[in-house]
Amino acid sequence: MSLLEEKSQNTTPISQLGEFGLIDHLTKNIKLKNENTIKGVGDDAAVIDMGDKYQLVSTDLLVEGVHFDLGYMPLKHLGYKSVAVNVSDICAMNGVAKQITVGLAMSNRFTIEALDELYAGIYLACEHYGVDLVGGDTTSSTSGLMISVTVLGEVEKENVVYRSGAKINDLVICTGDLGAAYLGLQLLNREKEMFNENPTMQPDLTGNDYVLKRQLKPEAGVKYITILKDLDIIPTSMIDISDGLSSEVLHLAKSSKVGITIYEDKIPVDYTTMNLANEFNMNPIVCALSGGEDYELLFTISQVHYDKFKKDADFTIVGYVTDASEGNNFIAKDGTSHPLTAQGWDAMKK
Amino acid sequence: MSLLEEKSQNTTPISQLGEFGLIDHLTKNIKLKNENTIKGVGDDAAVIDMGDKYQLVSTDLLVEGVHFDLGYMPLKHLGYKSVAVNVSDICAMNGVAKQITVGLAMSNRFTIEALDELYAGIYLACEHYGVDLVGGDTTSSTSGLMISVTVLGEVEKENVVYRSGAKINDLVICTGDLGAAYLGLQLLNREKEMFNENPTMQPDLTGNDYVLKRQLKPEAGVKYITILKDLDIIPTSMIDISDGLSSEVLHLAKSSKVGITIYEDKIPVDYTTMNLANEFNMNPIVCALSGGEDYELLFTISQVHYDKFKKDADFTIVGYVTDASEGNNFIAKDGTSHPLTAQGWDAMKK
Repeated sequence: MSLLEEKSQNTTPISQLGEFGLIDHLTKNIKLKNENTIKGVGDDAAVIDMGDKYQLVSTDLLVEGVHFDLGYMPLKHLGYKSVAVNVSDICAMNGVAKQITVGLAMSNRFTIEALDELYAGIYLACEHYGVDLVGGDTTSSTSGLMISVTVLGEVEKENVVYRSGAKINDLVICTGDLGAAYLGLQLLNREKEMFNENPTMQPDLTGNDYVLKRQLKPEAGVKYITILKDLDIIPTSMIDISDGLSSEVLHLAKSSKVGITIYEDKIPVDYTTMNLANEFNMNPIVCALSGGEDYELLFTISQVHYDKFKKDADFTIVGYVTDASEGNNFIAKDGTSHPLTAQGWDAMKK
Repeated sequence: MSLLEEKSQNTTPISQLGEFGLIDHLTKNIKLKNENTIKGVGDDAAVIDMGDKYQLVSTDLLVEGVHFDLGYMPLKHLGYKSVAVNVSDICAMNGVAKQITVGLAMSNRFTIEALDELYAGIYLACEHYGVDLVGGDTTSSTSGLMISVTVLGEVEKENVVYRSGAKINDLVICTGDLGAAYLGLQLLNREKEMFNENPTMQPDLTGNDYVLKRQLKPEAGVKYITILKDLDIIPTSMIDISDGLSSEVLHLAKSSKVGITIYEDKIPVDYTTMNLANEFNMNPIVCALSGGEDYELLFTISQVHYDKFKKDADFTIVGYVTDASEGNNFIAKDGTSHPLTAQGWDAMKK
């Protein structure tokens, strides 16, 4: 041990690998040692054998200046969101969230009243999702606010759903609608800039309650998990849509070793999202594919269940599963096919 | 929902409550909802019913500039320490750690090579403690490095130990020795200052390997948990010594609704710690009482087990449990009695 340990001369920026490349790089040599560890890194949650059931475990960080801006994110909403996005990971495994721990690092600019607001949101979400806050850690930071939530859930062993089970010819289904949270963020950013330029101005958010709620108070897809259970359907694969539809499609396809084709004209976008995208001169489908933070669920099911979904407004069939050799494709409204990328589809790059 | 939600006019600084007061304040209204939540906030780990066994869950944050200084903390040691301090919380419940999740927020000054070093330490600790890394989150931060580790462990239901079970006349026992980690930190701070004043100087850390190791590479008390099991002894209460002996004595006494008296001349301090304290003109007993980061275990046992411990160098009987009405006391070498406070004992305040 020495103060003088030689510093590495290599300086490869993290951006070279990207978030998922970095996780792959850091976890590629893991060998699981404990027999009750069923599934480690690589899905929405880890899976632990509890005997009768499986336990699901997931951790998410929310960092000020990266994931939220307290300039327009009320602390109570932030607290709620920090729980909801973790519960969403449990939903993505077809499970039910039960407990959370909350780690909090904050600078001394935060008062007790501010923390009370944050925790009011955390407890509201705990109440809504039936989750117990069982522990955590509270510490100071040199700057800003950082929230780390770990959620514990459970699922009957025979009901657990991984990213890896999609089969050729399965239907690809998306819950709710997409792109709204991203447009809510654009709206908040625009109003913040206008407010900074003219602080006496009142923000005009009329008619945009829906997209704002999707950004500021997202909900985990608990109701969809209940519907699936009532329909007696276990998806073959599932993931939550935190990074945009295209990124999640690629995750399912890669984990399941299949290809997935999705159709532009099937992607569910709410009309308020559509209108606002037009106002921003944005393509709403790009927002759905790449925007992120919608926390809807994306899953695959066998075609035998087609009749159960074709008329349900909560669920939209957006595509189907193919052999891996066909790759991942986006069929535009004009019928042309484009390779799907994490950024959307290649047509965007023109 | 509005951007214009009125900001609270109250601005009570967090420092007014202190860390433990803040946790009490934020968690005082929790009502546990799930029947498998056995114990929530208020011990070293939460307790979840897994059927055959109890699961233990604990979260700790390590924040740059608050908990560590990368000026002298090698990243590999930091990774190791971030796991060890969490495993220590599982030991404090008489359990065995099984899985961890790691949340990491870091600024763009960190390279892939730096993260590889950090993870090398994390994996080394996982190997050493038989723990699986099963998940986590990796994100950027606007400044600095923040590590959030959640550890999952397990314990036979009949063997779980809380802070709350100490009984009048129980013996109070401390593992290993105390104060070394704090003096290691003083030494590193001194050498860093001297290096900053004269960068060509070689740090002189000769003969201080022990205190440096205690600060830079602390170990969780797994071996003591094994010894207790072999001796067929279940402590009546237990806690890990992360904040100094006096703070932990007060936690056990408060949770168990008893008083505790400890003796200055019984407190275990290594001779290298003693020598270095003299060099720094510090009282080594103050370092043991208030220094923190030793990650030893403090526990109480029935007097019937006295013979099993009286000759074991790993365990030191430092005091005994009294009725709560007698308060918490520190008996100095001269025989005088002083009320024990979180900062040590009242004599320090003169």
